Parts: sequence; C-alpha cells; structure tokens
Amino acid sequence: MHAWTLAVHGGAGNFTSEHITKAEEREIRDAMQRALGAGGALLQAGDSALAAVEAAVEVLEDAPRFNAGRGSCYAANGKHEMEAAIMDGVTRRAGAATGLETVRHPVSLARAVMEDGRHVFLAGSGATAFAEAQGLQLEDPSFFRTDRMAQNLAAWKAYEAKQAVEAVGDGFHWTSQKFGTVGAVARDTQQRLAAATSTGGRTNKYPGRVGDTPTIGAGTYADEACAVSCTGNGEEFMRRVAAYDVSARMRYGDATLRESADSVVFDVLPEGSGGLIAVDREGTVVMPFNCSGMIRGYCRADGSFAVGLYGSEI
Amino acid sequence: MHAWTLAVHGGAGNFTSEHITKAEEREIRDAMQRALGAGGALLQAGDSALAAVEAAVEVLEDAPRFNAGRGSCYAANGKHEMEAAIMDGVTRRAGAATGLETVRHPVSLARAVMEDGRHVFLAGSGATAFAEAQGLQLEDPSFFRTDRMAQNLAAWKAYEAKQAVEAVGDGFHWTSQKFGTVGAVARDTQQRLAAATSTGGRTNKYPGRVGDTPTIGAGTYADEACAVSCTGNGEEFMRRVAAYDVSARMRYGDATLRESADSVVFDVLPEGSGGLIAVDREGTVVMPFNCSGMIRGYCRADGSFAVGLYGSEI
Repeated sequence: MHAWTLAVHGGAGNFTSEHITKAEEREIRDAMQRALGAGGALLQAGDSALAAVEAAVEVLEDAPRFNAGRGSCYAANGKHEMEAAIMDGVTRRAGAATGLETVRHPVSLARAVMEDGRHVFLAGSGATAFAEAQGLQLEDPSFFRTDRMAQNLAAWKAYEAKQAVEAVGDGFHWTSQKFGTVGAVARDTQQRLAAATSTGGRTNKYPGRVGDTPTIGAGTYADEACAVSCTGNGEEFMRRVAAYDVSARMRYGDATLRESADSVVFDVLPEGSGGLIAVDREGTVVMPFNCSGMIRGYCRADGSFAVGLYGSEI
Repeated sequence: MHAWTLAVHGGAGNFTSEHITKAEEREIRDAMQRALGAGGALLQAGDSALAAVEAAVEVLEDAPRFNAGRGSCYAANGKHEMEAAIMDGVTRRAGAATGLETVRHPVSLARAVMEDGRHVFLAGSGATAFAEAQGLQLEDPSFFRTDRMAQNLAAWKAYEAKQAVEAVGDGFHWTSQKFGTVGAVARDTQQRLAAATSTGGRTNKYPGRVGDTPTIGAGTYADEACAVSCTGNGEEFMRRVAAYDVSARMRYGDATLRESADSVVFDVLPEGSGGLIAVDREGTVVMPFNCSGMIRGYCRADGSFAVGLYGSEI
C-alpha cells in the first residue's frame, strides 16, 4: 500500500489577483476543492488513478468557470469544439477525442475510446457517433454556453477587425484567455499513475483546430515514470512533445521529476506559454509554470491539501 | 556544404515476395524511384530538406499503389479519410491535418498549416476549408478510389459479419493492409533535417479515427538530432510517442541514431507492428522494421541509390 496523491489544474495564463474578482476566485477555489474531493475520495477508497483523474476532470468540465465542457470557449465559427485525453501509466493505453460539440464530458469519451481499444484518438462527428453508441451523455450546444466566453469571442472578432491577422502571428494573444484547460494527474495506493486533460481549446481558433490536450505526448501523457497534464499555448507544447519530454528526461537522462518538469517548462517552452502538473511513482507532485498564474491544487492520503492561483502561492 | 541524404518509405507489413506480383513490384519500385528522384533533385539544387520531403511524399500520394492520397483505404463508413504531417527540424515548426476527403495532397495541406503558423493541427471540414482558402488542389472523392481498396473494405466487412468485433481486439488484423502509409526524411546541404508522412489510415477504421501519421511525436517528428517517419499499426506508435522517442534517446541517453531507432522498433514496439525511417545530422539513414516487409529506399548526393521491399534487401 502506497499513499495516494492527486493534483489538478484549471489553466495557466498571464493573470494576477488584479484580473480576478473575489467572487470569481471563490468560485474557482470551490470547484478545485470539489474536483480534488471527488478524485481523492476514489483514491482513498482504493480505486485506480485512472478513475480518480477522470472523476476530477468531470467536476471541472461541469464548472462553467473553466474552459472545458460547460464553459468552453468558442472557435472562430461561433461553435464549441471540445477535446480531451486520458492515459493509463501502467499499460500505456490511451484515449482521446476532439471536435466535440455536444458531449457533456469529453474526458469520459476519451476513457470510452481507451476502453474500446480499437483506436486511440477519434475526431469530429465520428467521435460523437461513438459517444452516442456508448451511451454517453450528450447536450444541446447551448448547454455549454457562457456569456463570458461569448464576450471573449466578440472581443477577438473586434480585435481582428482592427488589425491584420498576420500581424498577430503565432502567439495570437492566447494569454487573454485567463481560465483555461483543466487536467488531473494521480498516483493510487498501488503506485499506478494516470493523467487526463480536457479543454475547449482557444477562443477564435480555426474550426477543426486540434490542440495539445488530446495529443498523447504533447498535453497528456502517463507511463511508469510519471503522469503529466499540460495547459497553455497548446501549439508550443505540441511542437516540443512536452508531456512525453518530462518522462523521457527522467528515463533516459536520469533526471528527477522536478528537474525534468522544470527543464521543459523553463528551458524548452517559451516564457509565458503555460505550465504543467506532474506526479511520479514516489508521489512527488510538481506544478511549474512560466507565466504569472496557474490554477492548481493537490491533496494527499495524509490529508494535506492546497489550492493556488497566483505565483506566490503553494 | 554537406552531402544531402533522402529516404522514403511506402508502408510496412507482414508481407513477403509471395504476396506481391511482379507487376505490382515493378509499379512500387518505379514510384519509389520517382519519389526519390523528385526529392533528390531539389536537394541536389540546394533546396531545403522540408521542400524535398514534401515533394517526395506528393509523388507517393499520387501513386495509387500506396495508402495515401490517391489509393487511400476506406473507413468503415465507406469514405476516404486522409491525414498527413510535416515537420521542420531546424525550427520545430510543424503542420498536420486529418479527416480529409477531398484534398489532393494532404502533405501540402500540412505544409500550409505549418507556414500559416497559427495552429499545428487541423481536422475535418475545418481543415478542408483551410485548404480551399489556401488554394490547394481539391478532388472529388471518387478521384481517390481504387478497386483494390474497395475490395479491401468489402473483405473487412465480410470478416466482421462472421466474427464478433470484440474478438478481433486491438490488433485488428491491420497487417492485411500490405501497402501503407508513405513518408520521407531528409538532410539537406545545410545539414537541416525534415520529416513528412501521409496516409489513408486503416481500412474499416472508425470514422474520425486519428492515427499516428498526423500526430507530431508519434508518426512524424524532426528536430536538430534526427528526422523520423513511421509506418505500421498507428495506435502502438501513438501510445509510445515513437518518433519523438528516437530523438529523446539520442539527446538524453547519448544513443546513436541506429541504437535509438532499433530500441524503439525492436524493444518498445510490439513485434509485427511496423517500422520507421530516420536520418541524423551526419546523414546516417536507418530503416528498421519488426515485420516481414517494409517498402523503403534512399538516395544520396554521392549517387548511391537503393529500394527494397523485403527483409533481406538493403
């Protein structure tokens, strides 16, 4: 028996306490606490890391304050296009889905793809048809709507109208999206690791854009060495295969989880591009980020618990 | 000035000379020679590795004998769903696309996504709309049709009707698809590396299935250490982030290209699951595969040239 550990994130960005009202902060902390509680209860009961990360992410998908599930941002065509992935570190089985407009819990679809086992990654209407065949909960697109994200898209459109898109370039002001992607990593009492991530992607993204979240190795990855979930400017994480890179540095370079995660976040990824949460077999948790804020938290079998939003916390 | 090197593949599988007629073999060798010729001519003229891998893959996409572009296999819904990726090892810029039904050259769409730079990966109708906006060549879906692939799908449907899908499991007899994915890797005269891969995916795949080919790090990857293009049972390559793993073992584990590629193909990936082609900064080419055949070839600035299909060749 090993002491279980669970960590979750709710997105990274260049925000400080000045950008978030006290009411928003309470809402965020409450949802993070509920996500940790849901996953932690399963781990405490001896359930798997896989079940815990799925449960924690489902809570955050249902919380409209985060850019995943309900509360997802809008693509340039005014639609939600959600995506998610999950990976089991024991077997390296993985499941992922993208281009979802109606699936209530994208992470559960990712889990269903993994359990089905024929494929790893399904996209678009094929993914939704599979979700329906599996009996997963579907919702009308309006279910996922929030005024906040509708305003976010409108602001982007206004910005684009004023300025040539070419001038925006690759960075594309993703940092205006303060509340991002959600994810979880866990070690269970049998020392098994798992990771899951879910997102609405980037506001005003090209329709059909696939990000790092559902890309195994980029935004989500787990094996016997560590489990990793990333958040930030997804394209940067994809080009660097960031989540897998944490594991590779540990396994081939004899680095610790801390050293590996810090190298990826502070040396490899561009400054301001985001962060990640990761856990290793010993239950070590790291949560480095190279922007001013990342919504993050953890809990452990010993009862320790913390949630932070800004640079100076936990 | 460095001596340029180009390698291409046309798919791996458990085939031997008994499964391929002499006429088919001539067709395959001819297309491989033309692909190497197209890419080699660019490299000889001092053009980039990126341009060379795109040109080589375009030739194989147009050759109906390969499962990419024209000649792609059918998904379970009777449609072609093509995908491709390209990556520049110098900048780690990358582009990818999936779920394409009408794009003549999926690799050129991947290149256009990369050059646009806002995103790395586009899927489905959004990817096709982007292709159209970029002025890329589109074709009616019937353009991609071959009797061979239509028969392949029919055989799969008959097989499924006789046998519960559950019993087929993860392997799903992908090896019946003898002629697969195509890809290219190159080092140019400025010692720059690049990789590209293109495929129709797997016959009878679930609609919307995304494979390793467009997944940066899984089936396609390039950086300053090496450029890699994979072919085989894509899901296995995705779970192991196979293409990036070749680079990680070189950079963190001080392994040579040969050692890294052999470890990934013979120790990490399941036996019979496929192979890869890779090139490093010194121009070393490796083409390991763990099944009985892989269509492969290379050419170099010194005029050396070889194409092989079976285990004993080159």
